[in-house]
Amino acid sequence: MTLAEQMLDTYPADLGGVDRRKLAACITECYACAQACTACADACLSEDDVASLTKCIRADLDCADICFATGQMLSRHTGYDANLTRAMLEACAMACKSCGDICAEHDHMTHCAKCAMECRNCERACRELLDSLG
Amino acid sequence: MTLAEQMLDTYPADLGGVDRRKLAACITECYACAQACTACADACLSEDDVASLTKCIRADLDCADICFATGQMLSRHTGYDANLTRAMLEACAMACKSCGDICAEHDHMTHCAKCAMECRNCERACRELLDSLG
Amino acid sequence: MTLAEQMLDTYPADLGGVDRRKLAACITECYACAQACTACADACLSEDDVASLTKCIRADLDCADICFATGQMLSRHTGYDANLTRAMLEACAMACKSCGDICAEHDHMTHCAKCAMECRNCERACRELLDSLG
Amino acid sequence: MTLAEQMLDTYPADLGGVDRRKLAACITECYACAQACTACADACLSEDDVASLTKCIRADLDCADICFATGQMLSRHTGYDANLTRAMLEACAMACKSCGDICAEHDHMTHCAKCAMECRNCERACRELLDSLG
Repeated sequence: MTLAEQMLDTYPADLGGVDRRKLAACITECYACAQACTACADACLSEDDVASLTKCIRADLDCADICFATGQMLSRHTGYDANLTRAMLEACAMACKSCGDICAEHDHMTHCAKCAMECRNCERACRELLDSLG
Repeated sequence: MTLAEQMLDTYPADLGGVDRRKLAACITECYACAQACTACADACLSEDDVASLTKCIRADLDCADICFATGQMLSRHTGYDANLTRAMLEACAMACKSCGDICAEHDHMTHCAKCAMECRNCERACRELLDSLG
Repeated sequence: MTLAEQMLDTYPADLGGVDRRKLAACITECYACAQACTACADACLSEDDVASLTKCIRADLDCADICFATGQMLSRHTGYDANLTRAMLEACAMACKSCGDICAEHDHMTHCAKCAMECRNCERACRELLDSLG
Repeated sequence: MTLAEQMLDTYPADLGGVDRRKLAACITECYACAQACTACADACLSEDDVASLTKCIRADLDCADICFATGQMLSRHTGYDANLTRAMLEACAMACKSCGDICAEHDHMTHCAKCAMECRNCERACRELLDSLG
């Protein structure tokens, strides 16, 4: 059981009809993707051809900020706001899609390959949670 | 001239057709709203009737995280992604609307009154920037 | 192998003499602790006796912010600044110690018990990385 | 009166013997510096000689994260932890000093010149608050 799942199980009030497995998975992916994007941006900075990677770095930085904000929000259940949750999940899925696509363009660099994979994982987790919210 | 405007003027490449005044205003409001919401959440924690303010605190925390992520994103212009910018501005305006509405319900507390006012300012700045993006 | 370790292995330049295992472990704990503290603060908000938990909530919020900033910083290796890294690791270990101590005082609530445990893990990871930096 | 000062004035409990003017000034500078560093990192990405600016970008990113965490922490007064506050103010002053020094090395670029100036302002505000804490 991941720590996010364990924390979810300790919430003292009603979580509503949320799919706990999908919620916990999405929380975990949001923080993991924030870390991977931050590391990828920095790895890009150390590549010889950093000048060709500036859009990738920018996408990484945005994705890290948005994934973190989304992970923080999903970790809270008190006074749940369904519309805001959906809007952030949509924005997060979109950030992960953009960043994943850009990283996948130069996946001969292993940091971009790994980061693209994590962005796909996080995008999927956001979409699956969104679908389960109805 | 605000610091956000000054920084915007130093950007060495083309900013496209963006309305610089509205962009700079929105950046400034995003950071100001993040601060106000963080301070309001903490002030709520020191109220005698904190138990009646838990939804307000949660709205403050979400709004602070989302405003910060939006301010960070709007501070970047390299590899601009119009769809993601719109999605985050929508989410940020929504977070500010929710938080402002909740704070306005108990504006006999000056921290909530001030925070509601700042949320309105930030929501308006997001909407005006969104409208100008076409 | 954790994702943080995998990302570390993709860094294209020299990492200096850093202990990779301890660095990756500390990165992982920083993000995990940020999530646990955010979830614990929210769980506290849903407890009937939230009024007795306000210092715990505040410690959680600080610890989450500091752990995230530390995790971000440790995910970067380009232009490594040893003194700043040490200062942030000290601050992060201190934040985890404070938050862990406060949560441990009411570990009859499982969110505080789990959060205290994660704070101890993160504090230890920071201290072990600090020690290895010499 | 700045918004940070106004929010400080709304805090419903005792603020202890803190110098309100210096505290509010430091909060304002932390958020302003986070924004300036984020904008400077992005402006560097759009410079033709980005390859010579990678250490500056990294310093900007760290400084933004640390200033934001410090600004968040200083915006909270409930359950004040003097030692942790001092440790974060020291780390923040150090991050601002490093980033300001690096930006000042190439202040022929106006984003680095402006960012260096803001880093100096934030460093000074942190030091003045630290001194006033005794």
